[in-house]
Amino acid sequence: MRTIDWGESAGDAGASGRGAVVIVDQTVLPHEVRLLTLTDVDDLVDAIRRLAVRGAPALGAAGALGVLLAVRQGRAEGWSHDEVAKAIDRVRHARPTAVNLAWGVDRVAARLADGDAAIEAEARAVLDEDVAANRAMGDRGADVLDGLCAAPRHGGGLRLHTHCNAGALACVEYGTALGVVRAVHARGRLDRVYADETRPLLQGARLTAWELDQMGADYRVVVDGAGPSLIARGMVDAVVVGSDRIAANGDVANKIGTYPLALAAARAGVPFVVAAPESTVDAATPDGAAIEIEDRGDHEVVAWQGRQVAPAGARAVNPAFDVTPADLVTAIVTEARVVRPAAGERPA
Amino acid sequence: MRTIDWGESAGDAGASGRGAVVIVDQTVLPHEVRLLTLTDVDDLVDAIRRLAVRGAPALGAAGALGVLLAVRQGRAEGWSHDEVAKAIDRVRHARPTAVNLAWGVDRVAARLADGDAAIEAEARAVLDEDVAANRAMGDRGADVLDGLCAAPRHGGGLRLHTHCNAGALACVEYGTALGVVRAVHARGRLDRVYADETRPLLQGARLTAWELDQMGADYRVVVDGAGPSLIARGMVDAVVVGSDRIAANGDVANKIGTYPLALAAARAGVPFVVAAPESTVDAATPDGAAIEIEDRGDHEVVAWQGRQVAPAGARAVNPAFDVTPADLVTAIVTEARVVRPAAGERPA
Repeated sequence: MRTIDWGESAGDAGASGRGAVVIVDQTVLPHEVRLLTLTDVDDLVDAIRRLAVRGAPALGAAGALGVLLAVRQGRAEGWSHDEVAKAIDRVRHARPTAVNLAWGVDRVAARLADGDAAIEAEARAVLDEDVAANRAMGDRGADVLDGLCAAPRHGGGLRLHTHCNAGALACVEYGTALGVVRAVHARGRLDRVYADETRPLLQGARLTAWELDQMGADYRVVVDGAGPSLIARGMVDAVVVGSDRIAANGDVANKIGTYPLALAAARAGVPFVVAAPESTVDAATPDGAAIEIEDRGDHEVVAWQGRQVAPAGARAVNPAFDVTPADLVTAIVTEARVVRPAAGERPA
Repeated sequence: MRTIDWGESAGDAGASGRGAVVIVDQTVLPHEVRLLTLTDVDDLVDAIRRLAVRGAPALGAAGALGVLLAVRQGRAEGWSHDEVAKAIDRVRHARPTAVNLAWGVDRVAARLADGDAAIEAEARAVLDEDVAANRAMGDRGADVLDGLCAAPRHGGGLRLHTHCNAGALACVEYGTALGVVRAVHARGRLDRVYADETRPLLQGARLTAWELDQMGADYRVVVDGAGPSLIARGMVDAVVVGSDRIAANGDVANKIGTYPLALAAARAGVPFVVAAPESTVDAATPDGAAIEIEDRGDHEVVAWQGRQVAPAGARAVNPAFDVTPADLVTAIVTEARVVRPAAGERPA
């Protein structure tokens, strides 16, 4: 199932034929699988803002479909060209820092003069290409793991460790790091997945666990501090994670808590594999030191579900990402190639 | 204030004179300072199991006082020698990995034949010695850090990183790792403390933060996954942690999430210092591989404050401790000596 797609509206008869953006509402997972059928551009903008849809590739898809939705809604409601353009602009700026969102909008908006069929085809292509890239990445990643873990220590199958959510929910379908897990599972080679809960926002415990549950994989949730010792105790055959940015030298920025897994994997001689689309490789960033690390403030750390955990007035340091140095990265797998930074190869 | 002590029962008149173990209930800190007055051995066992009292030295005190409580309760309720012995055994086995608990029990149980006064004196001595040991350890640890960090990178003072709670709340008073922090602070040499929140039970965010707040130290709470990258980014001058068991070769068992800090410290050339009483050194355990790691089950990980976080039915692996290999341990500081495992020294 796609986590974001174009569908016919399930709304009132008046909206019939106008179409809708259909998304899995990530704010209520894993307790409820709620589909949102969005027939109004401003509902899509709201869904993007409140993180009902999240993840860089998924936001690219939301941007692409947002243009199509604006065109269809505009026709149904008799909007002027200017009104359609303004609606598209609202989608583009729903989260101003999300580069993929603007990229998805711009790609489809470039076809506005070419007619409805071309617009819809372009939007659908954004989604299809993401799925195809993920599947290629998954297959290549499974091949890489086959080579790196020819004789899994556990005998039966691979025991993989992942962090945060680099799954279908962050993409259109299938996933990047979790796409690799999916491919290994499809080959009957998956024994178990350890999923870090991923504080402070628990994307692992909520989203990755849900995806693993859906695919019928055997999995265990672990606190972030436990990952490295599981690796040291011989419980993990390989670590597979996604990435938010890859520097030219192979340093990898990813969700905070990734670096400890890489340290432990290197010491234990366990492969550390990064799965990410080519668009993640940033040739303009020479190394990890040049990557700015966003700090997301105190609140996510010192309180939980609105309840203060730490003493009143406690401050936090809350970096969203860490950088894993290239020498700890066994392989970077993209839809196009495999790069081995620990062996001295550079992605750019 | 002592966080565990022997007191007269505040319970019903029938229990008067039988005495009680009085503890600060650590499960409700930092929001409330609640004293528990335990007059029944099984209430003490329950308090130990649900971590109302926790921390290796505090568990030693709980074990010592538990024997005294069993004797007093046994007399009040007319228990046989066998029933008293069984009650003592329940205390001794309330938690498996904590060597101090059994040590405290055994030390006082050795005086069982010597009469009430001797038993009470021995139990009280365990507490008094712990306080004295902590103060000696704190001073020695501050000396060790002075030597290791003669020129703190930050200039003004030491930026220390700690995990879990090895403070007054984990002991009888003062603390082990946090006792070292306290001594550094008393010398005017403390710049800042980074306190890992320490999932799943958040002893860092709740207890260590509370103690640091009480002592007026500058501190920041961080998620466990963030610690290693703060060290890599040069934000930490030394890591100081406690220990639940130290093997003869210098391998150190401590709260889950300690090992990643040691890995990061070694890579960054930052000292990794363990502060623990001599009773933590277990000569009968040759190395870390021989240390049983308690798994505390799914619930602490998959739910938070009673609310399910992960999908229904999600399983967890929830080890309470990890083992840091001796080669990553710069120094072990006890009340009696300094051992340098990374330089090849053995504690036993």
